[in-house]
Amino acid sequence: MDEIVTLAHGAGGKKTAELIEKVFKTHFSNPEFTGDDAAVLQIDGNQLAFTTDGFIVSPPEFPGGNIGKLSVCGTVNDLACMGAQPLYLSCAFVIEEGFSLAKVEAYAAAMEKTANEAGVRIVAGDTKVAGKGQVDNLFITTTGIGRVMQGCHTSGTFARPGDAVIVTGDVGRHGCTILLARDTYGIKADVTSDCAPLWGTVKTMFDTTKNIHVIRDATRGGVGTVLYEIAEQSNIGIRLDAAAIPIDKAVSGVCGMLGLEPLYLACEGRLVVFAPKEEAAALLETLHKGTYSKNAAIIGEVTAELAGRVIMKTEIGTETMLPPPGGELLPRIC
Amino acid sequence: MDEIVTLAHGAGGKKTAELIEKVFKTHFSNPEFTGDDAAVLQIDGNQLAFTTDGFIVSPPEFPGGNIGKLSVCGTVNDLACMGAQPLYLSCAFVIEEGFSLAKVEAYAAAMEKTANEAGVRIVAGDTKVAGKGQVDNLFITTTGIGRVMQGCHTSGTFARPGDAVIVTGDVGRHGCTILLARDTYGIKADVTSDCAPLWGTVKTMFDTTKNIHVIRDATRGGVGTVLYEIAEQSNIGIRLDAAAIPIDKAVSGVCGMLGLEPLYLACEGRLVVFAPKEEAAALLETLHKGTYSKNAAIIGEVTAELAGRVIMKTEIGTETMLPPPGGELLPRIC
Repeated sequence: MDEIVTLAHGAGGKKTAELIEKVFKTHFSNPEFTGDDAAVLQIDGNQLAFTTDGFIVSPPEFPGGNIGKLSVCGTVNDLACMGAQPLYLSCAFVIEEGFSLAKVEAYAAAMEKTANEAGVRIVAGDTKVAGKGQVDNLFITTTGIGRVMQGCHTSGTFARPGDAVIVTGDVGRHGCTILLARDTYGIKADVTSDCAPLWGTVKTMFDTTKNIHVIRDATRGGVGTVLYEIAEQSNIGIRLDAAAIPIDKAVSGVCGMLGLEPLYLACEGRLVVFAPKEEAAALLETLHKGTYSKNAAIIGEVTAELAGRVIMKTEIGTETMLPPPGGELLPRIC
Repeated sequence: MDEIVTLAHGAGGKKTAELIEKVFKTHFSNPEFTGDDAAVLQIDGNQLAFTTDGFIVSPPEFPGGNIGKLSVCGTVNDLACMGAQPLYLSCAFVIEEGFSLAKVEAYAAAMEKTANEAGVRIVAGDTKVAGKGQVDNLFITTTGIGRVMQGCHTSGTFARPGDAVIVTGDVGRHGCTILLARDTYGIKADVTSDCAPLWGTVKTMFDTTKNIHVIRDATRGGVGTVLYEIAEQSNIGIRLDAAAIPIDKAVSGVCGMLGLEPLYLACEGRLVVFAPKEEAAALLETLHKGTYSKNAAIIGEVTAELAGRVIMKTEIGTETMLPPPGGELLPRIC
């Protein structure tokens, strides 16, 4: 293992997995410790989901949201992906000395609004102030408890040949928004983050059918990283149809200019769903009625061959391998 | 309200209370939102305690512990103070790029050891890496779920005239240890942090009697801040006997040199307990048998007069008011 922590260790890819495997799994070994988005706990006969996420985003405000909204969506969505109705959240703030109180209040207001929409209550909190220069603006860590719905069992290991691969909307918007908000490249484009609470989306899918194998939110590392993780966890291959992947025109334009693959840009309001092909039409019909999933599309299928790989049928009909996720995020969005 | 966040907003005193009242209570208003150490949730017939705490400590290693041990103790102790048996923890790391991986592993090992001692399982986690200079070494946020024990009801509002005020050990060790570890003043002294998981201590107290009114851990702001909070919340006065307050000789020496009041130095393994006088002898007998409470002592009593104030009988027999907690912590320990 490297002797120092690198940005790649936090990018959600191979190095993060290595850190979890070698350090955290070694020391936090117990039956409930999880590689999924949330741990599932049995407490006195109830099945609860439990998850935590730290949010550091620069800039803390961006078109379509701010760090407060993001910190609620991220944890609500991790619970939702486990088929769990979000019930309660805690939040811990670390704020840099000298940061604007009005901004802290604006982020708290965004958290309130998003929590209300998701039907979750923020019940516990903590505030620490770090000295000037000890932290960049502010970090928010949220932790959520949800009630696992009966009959809803999904996992990254459940994908099967014959499954359709669905995304619930156009991909890469959040990563592209942050990239533009930083103004590093001097590019202007009209892109808004997809940041949204997705419990409602998940619930309507399960109301349509319980026969869903995998639900994952495509945050750090984007849809591409999630697909590679599932291909490995379920030991299956994935064949994508490039023409079917919904991408906003402006996002596509920015990616073209900078040579970025939109599948590897973070989303904060998009789910990757694996379900048997015969369920896909009904799921799509449901999704197209939802606020946050109007552009949902079937983007590919699961194959028995080429296990662990993601193959893409290009728009000119050839096949190419989607490059596996590398180290650092481009751009770093957290 | 001030327009920027100051260190005092994170010091656990008046400014922190103002921030919670004006920003967080306004936006996170719901029946479970709590001013106590943990929220109490009713989930499908179970009563669960839920609490979160962010840990930033400089230096991250100190005599008697490190940030990993601290991050488990802090959350376990907040649950314990609510009469809740700690069951599960999550942890979120924010690590500075370039930080030593071996140290991260050492902190994880300390978390494992402390969690085992407290009987709690670490089941969910998150790791973010911040760019060089975006964070000072590393922050750990832990969140805990506990099972509230039947018949154990404590609250900062339950103190009553006639209660004895007990501390479970000598005060101010953690704050003094951090102060010395920073080496700002060039003072050397043999002081070790009291950092410890206290669920066992709380359990043996409740096994002795359920008739306990308040249990609080005296972290940020120390015993003095906790006493003033309880005096206000319960609308009672507190009369302390200075000679009865257990203080380690080396801590007392350091405080003497620097003009610090040990009652305002943080502890990380000490509880402040309010219980009816007639229960105090039995509680002390139990505490004196415990690993972390051998020096427990009755340090004062609750009075009906002088509500909201803490009076101290000095060692020469006069009475003086303990100065109310001010703004910043001295030293800043988090």
